[in-house]
Amino acid sequence: MDRSGPSGRTGVWFIGARGSVATTATAGCAAIAAGLHPPTGMVTETPPFADSGLPPLPALVFGGHDTLDCPLAKRAETLADGGVLPPGLPSAVRAELDAADAEIRPGGPLPGDTRDDEQLIAAFTADLTDFARRHGLARTVVINVASTEPAPGPDALRLPASSLYAAAALRAGCAYANFTPSTGLRAPALAAAIASCELPHAGRDGKTGQTLLRSVLAPMFLQRALAVRAWSGSNLLGGGDGAALADPAAAAAKNAGKERVLADTFGTAPEGEVHIDDVPAMGDWKTAWDHIAFDGFLGSRMILQTIWQGCDSALAAPLVLDLARLLARAHEAGISGPLPELGFYFKDPDGGASAALGEQYAALLSFAERLRGQA
Amino acid sequence: MDRSGPSGRTGVWFIGARGSVATTATAGCAAIAAGLHPPTGMVTETPPFADSGLPPLPALVFGGHDTLDCPLAKRAETLADGGVLPPGLPSAVRAELDAADAEIRPGGPLPGDTRDDEQLIAAFTADLTDFARRHGLARTVVINVASTEPAPGPDALRLPASSLYAAAALRAGCAYANFTPSTGLRAPALAAAIASCELPHAGRDGKTGQTLLRSVLAPMFLQRALAVRAWSGSNLLGGGDGAALADPAAAAAKNAGKERVLADTFGTAPEGEVHIDDVPAMGDWKTAWDHIAFDGFLGSRMILQTIWQGCDSALAAPLVLDLARLLARAHEAGISGPLPELGFYFKDPDGGASAALGEQYAALLSFAERLRGQA
Amino acid sequence: MDRSGPSGRTGVWFIGARGSVATTATAGCAAIAAGLHPPTGMVTETPPFADSGLPPLPALVFGGHDTLDCPLAKRAETLADGGVLPPGLPSAVRAELDAADAEIRPGGPLPGDTRDDEQLIAAFTADLTDFARRHGLARTVVINVASTEPAPGPDALRLPASSLYAAAALRAGCAYANFTPSTGLRAPALAAAIASCELPHAGRDGKTGQTLLRSVLAPMFLQRALAVRAWSGSNLLGGGDGAALADPAAAAAKNAGKERVLADTFGTAPEGEVHIDDVPAMGDWKTAWDHIAFDGFLGSRMILQTIWQGCDSALAAPLVLDLARLLARAHEAGISGPLPELGFYFKDPDGGASAALGEQYAALLSFAERLRGQA
Amino acid sequence: MDRSGPSGRTGVWFIGARGSVATTATAGCAAIAAGLHPPTGMVTETPPFADSGLPPLPALVFGGHDTLDCPLAKRAETLADGGVLPPGLPSAVRAELDAADAEIRPGGPLPGDTRDDEQLIAAFTADLTDFARRHGLARTVVINVASTEPAPGPDALRLPASSLYAAAALRAGCAYANFTPSTGLRAPALAAAIASCELPHAGRDGKTGQTLLRSVLAPMFLQRALAVRAWSGSNLLGGGDGAALADPAAAAAKNAGKERVLADTFGTAPEGEVHIDDVPAMGDWKTAWDHIAFDGFLGSRMILQTIWQGCDSALAAPLVLDLARLLARAHEAGISGPLPELGFYFKDPDGGASAALGEQYAALLSFAERLRGQA
Repeated sequence: MDRSGPSGRTGVWFIGARGSVATTATAGCAAIAAGLHPPTGMVTETPPFADSGLPPLPALVFGGHDTLDCPLAKRAETLADGGVLPPGLPSAVRAELDAADAEIRPGGPLPGDTRDDEQLIAAFTADLTDFARRHGLARTVVINVASTEPAPGPDALRLPASSLYAAAALRAGCAYANFTPSTGLRAPALAAAIASCELPHAGRDGKTGQTLLRSVLAPMFLQRALAVRAWSGSNLLGGGDGAALADPAAAAAKNAGKERVLADTFGTAPEGEVHIDDVPAMGDWKTAWDHIAFDGFLGSRMILQTIWQGCDSALAAPLVLDLARLLARAHEAGISGPLPELGFYFKDPDGGASAALGEQYAALLSFAERLRGQA
Repeated sequence: MDRSGPSGRTGVWFIGARGSVATTATAGCAAIAAGLHPPTGMVTETPPFADSGLPPLPALVFGGHDTLDCPLAKRAETLADGGVLPPGLPSAVRAELDAADAEIRPGGPLPGDTRDDEQLIAAFTADLTDFARRHGLARTVVINVASTEPAPGPDALRLPASSLYAAAALRAGCAYANFTPSTGLRAPALAAAIASCELPHAGRDGKTGQTLLRSVLAPMFLQRALAVRAWSGSNLLGGGDGAALADPAAAAAKNAGKERVLADTFGTAPEGEVHIDDVPAMGDWKTAWDHIAFDGFLGSRMILQTIWQGCDSALAAPLVLDLARLLARAHEAGISGPLPELGFYFKDPDGGASAALGEQYAALLSFAERLRGQA
Repeated sequence: MDRSGPSGRTGVWFIGARGSVATTATAGCAAIAAGLHPPTGMVTETPPFADSGLPPLPALVFGGHDTLDCPLAKRAETLADGGVLPPGLPSAVRAELDAADAEIRPGGPLPGDTRDDEQLIAAFTADLTDFARRHGLARTVVINVASTEPAPGPDALRLPASSLYAAAALRAGCAYANFTPSTGLRAPALAAAIASCELPHAGRDGKTGQTLLRSVLAPMFLQRALAVRAWSGSNLLGGGDGAALADPAAAAAKNAGKERVLADTFGTAPEGEVHIDDVPAMGDWKTAWDHIAFDGFLGSRMILQTIWQGCDSALAAPLVLDLARLLARAHEAGISGPLPELGFYFKDPDGGASAALGEQYAALLSFAERLRGQA
Repeated sequence: MDRSGPSGRTGVWFIGARGSVATTATAGCAAIAAGLHPPTGMVTETPPFADSGLPPLPALVFGGHDTLDCPLAKRAETLADGGVLPPGLPSAVRAELDAADAEIRPGGPLPGDTRDDEQLIAAFTADLTDFARRHGLARTVVINVASTEPAPGPDALRLPASSLYAAAALRAGCAYANFTPSTGLRAPALAAAIASCELPHAGRDGKTGQTLLRSVLAPMFLQRALAVRAWSGSNLLGGGDGAALADPAAAAAKNAGKERVLADTFGTAPEGEVHIDDVPAMGDWKTAWDHIAFDGFLGSRMILQTIWQGCDSALAAPLVLDLARLLARAHEAGISGPLPELGFYFKDPDGGASAALGEQYAALLSFAERLRGQA
């Protein structure tokens, strides 16, 4: 497989290309490349990654699938009104938003769509191939940032949409990451395609806020031999994500990831539930409250509470750009298969990753060094 | 130097032996040794330390210096009334408390004390030597858990009390740890004695609550390339610690440690202050609120707040027992000098230690393995 | 109707007499009467109620119904172990607990119970009459403090248990209050009996924590013309109450009360949900987090969060004693019918009560004055 | 005294006319008058005040004193950048901002100012008289919204600046309110002038956030007979207010007001301190954390914590407009002297006001009715 192209340009193909995360990533990449903002939140712009041969931000070309048709520039204005993007940014990067907008193709299946799974995969694959050909891309990374799907039942006859897109990524020879709790590559029907694809792919369900915190706090309790008795959480969020997660099946998929880090750290999940409430008044801003009841020496009862107030899109977007660059470089370096080294980014990392953020970060630095060695 | 004794018993000598931490550690050690409670909070009772040759809990013999004369058993009753010790525990371990009480010697200098520094050091050394001789101890570890001293001025003519005790420890051939922000071994006048003593010693200022949290949260922000703009904190506590820290000079010494972990992690300390309020109504329970303002992608403003409600004595006591065991074993194994490997326990670790808890834990596990190899 | 008895003693009959609230109230009344504790939390022990002719605490005689048979003294010990009662209190008031224990009769319907509603009401009435007769009581107040029942469906053929007890109270000539969200007197089938009973009765669903807060905070926002956009809440609690409210139907009954105060204050309920989680590790202690998103001048977005950490039984018990005394005195004074003047105590007050705590308190003071005038 | 003017227009003269509060009030009044925003936060725009004869918003004419010379329009832009004003608002009300800007006169004493107190008062009085004359105003209300002054020492030879402005207000026949903790009318030297002025004046130190909360929570604890043991608070804020309050003397003046509401409610102030930290990163947004330790029944220990995240300028501005309208109307109606009926707005109300917000609101409604009767 030839991994280099004439241009050295790298495609970033978003599933959910008109959503908050993709819009923020597309606009932000342009703003940082233009020197309008520092690359806050982008781990791959920190010194340890300087010589790892990652594609530079100006070399990224954006496109994607989406089932909606709101223009990216308008979506960006809405995000600026909600405080997710700085005022003035959408107009400053209007050209780049329009360019990406022109590369967004209709997703599916749409309501009334009569195409079967194979037809949909073929159509999506053709979109990817066409995108790479027209831009003379060295390679393309596909990243799912669409709304969380309900968890599919065990008897589902068709693949969930996220898996159709994932199958198309493999067929088109693209590296793949799933930043959502949706099924993506984890569909059993894709096992054979994955095994034979020789492509790098990574994780599931990006770790941006409450779970990020849990991935440092849970190891702290464990290392200090403190006995966590109950870990409860509540999330309030609005925006599209809030509406999507108001569906109990989608929330269940999301919560499974939140609890996984606790179960992985402690061996067994402590008492406690996690709630996700759709609160439209919150817009794209999320508040997550965690309450951790733990025992100390001689059974003394203690409590830690955390309140996280953040903007999920702004937290996710730089990580998504990180993943695109790391997967593109891994692809170029001939690294394939699941990458537990990218567990730093995920609630549900690929097998073999630690659940502790500190160890995940160490693994990521080693990966950066490995890429450096192959540059 | 002969490090073994006929009995294999190890002395634990507390500076501040009648204080909350020492009383809790003494009572708790007895309770755990008797099987009354699991060893929650004791890191050295977790599997990685099983074969490191640490002295078993029943082999620890307690004594110490204090300037007060409230009997340990009565002190323990007061702690039980305040919820620090379980009701019933003081009477269950009455014999062990009385035995430790009989080994507490007057500290100094007391008000009106006419002894000079050398006379005080000599007296303290004699107390330590006598303790070891009478019990036939293999060795003794001295641990400072007394109230925080005001930071000494640059022109102080005499050593602070904590340094007199530390000098006595060296002179008596005892390993030493300073769990408080007081000067201890860090007095310039002790440099020569430290250099020639061939004894292991460790850190300053135990890390039990707010700083423990900071040592996992600050690396999280750093690793995620999020820009911390301000980190503010407020502590409410009563008990003896609250009263001691109501002295601004003592609070300043304490706060220096809290801010060190941020400065060490970020390179420079972010905006924000730390307050310590004496709130007698809180008793021995402490509440620490932290407010962290940080920037994400494209300058989006986000906030994390943490509320920690814990009992400082119950947090400190198991760590103090850990340190006694680790230092005793290091002493036995011929390891001497400062031990950055014990940075896990301190706000102000010995030189060379990382400020991130995860890395400190990894260093501690390596140290446990090293001790295992020498067993 | 003759309202005075030879002894001047007043009966307090608890539905749920072996539960946490009843046990705490019974033990606490004895402890305060004996001068062991100040009457913290008892509004009727404050100066404005001094001359209202309320029955003194030593004149209260306790009894009740319960479907469990754990002895009160043992229940009290369990509460003391969980920190609800002070250690030592159960033994100090053992005699009073045993006396109350002897006055607890089996509730119903029990599993397999073949009695119909009328038979159950008759049995409960006989228990009440017998209690009054044997003790020569001037009168008895019945207070429901049993676990929350699931809300009955519209087609239920039988009365819920709480209504059977309420019907018995009316038939036995007892004043009645319902401190739970269960149906009690609000069953349509009881309307005729209520109308003809000439007995005072009050409210539904005691207001002890999160709703208490809401009843002062919601008026604050309203009075300041601030626009509440969303009010979300999460409750963590263990104990029997946590287990009972893990039943979604019971939680729904409870939450209806919590939201009522907001709807009553604002005219319409703001966005936001309330969750109740059963967290056994919390024991009888409850943590309630509220998140209130509101708009200020020119649409500026602001947030208030509250965290309430309390013991529901200790919050409820003094209010239950208050209600018993106030209803007994109202009964003596010939006041009958619903008492909106006691809205201060309830999430769901009798018709005509304000939803604002300050106004409810003013109404309560007027009621105290009215009782004073009739003394 | 003739209180009516040919125009019916009312002057609003801000001391600190270029500060955040005055700028927000000036811009906001224009925006609401133009129908661009609803009057959220303005109590005088709610129904109970509809017929009280208050001057309508379009009839208000703004001017003031300030020692800075940043143009109002530019100040408004800065506030919009910081999220205090909506983006776009400064340009939408540019004409009104420029008109107010033209009416701002230099304050004093400036550094190097050689004028004595009498000369300064005369100059300020002339500014006020000139303002009224040129605009043909019916009357003018002077409101102090300048930065908090350090509390003057007992031996100060000169009046603090806030008192010079207050003296000028009296001399020019203007009603007066002091929205800051500075001395204002409370200087002993002004007593005679106040007694003879026949002007309405009100309170000290506006109640916008943490103290607003305290004025509903403290009565709640009192009414429920719960024993508050300690009430501690911490405030983080940036902006000009944060910088001014970094001066310990200014912070002391501010904190006195915060503690007054507790002392007034409980009879004696509970344990606990209040901190105000200057955190420039917070901009004009303030976070206030309160921790309230209280005892319930039988000494059970409970805790309430509140976290208030608001924009002080946006909270103050509508209240300042309220005060201007109420004082103007009182002046018109011939009401003079201190107005405890406006205690709703102040941390340090005029004598006779309750400390409970609910009672203050009731008094305010009565005042509105009284004004209605005189219309």
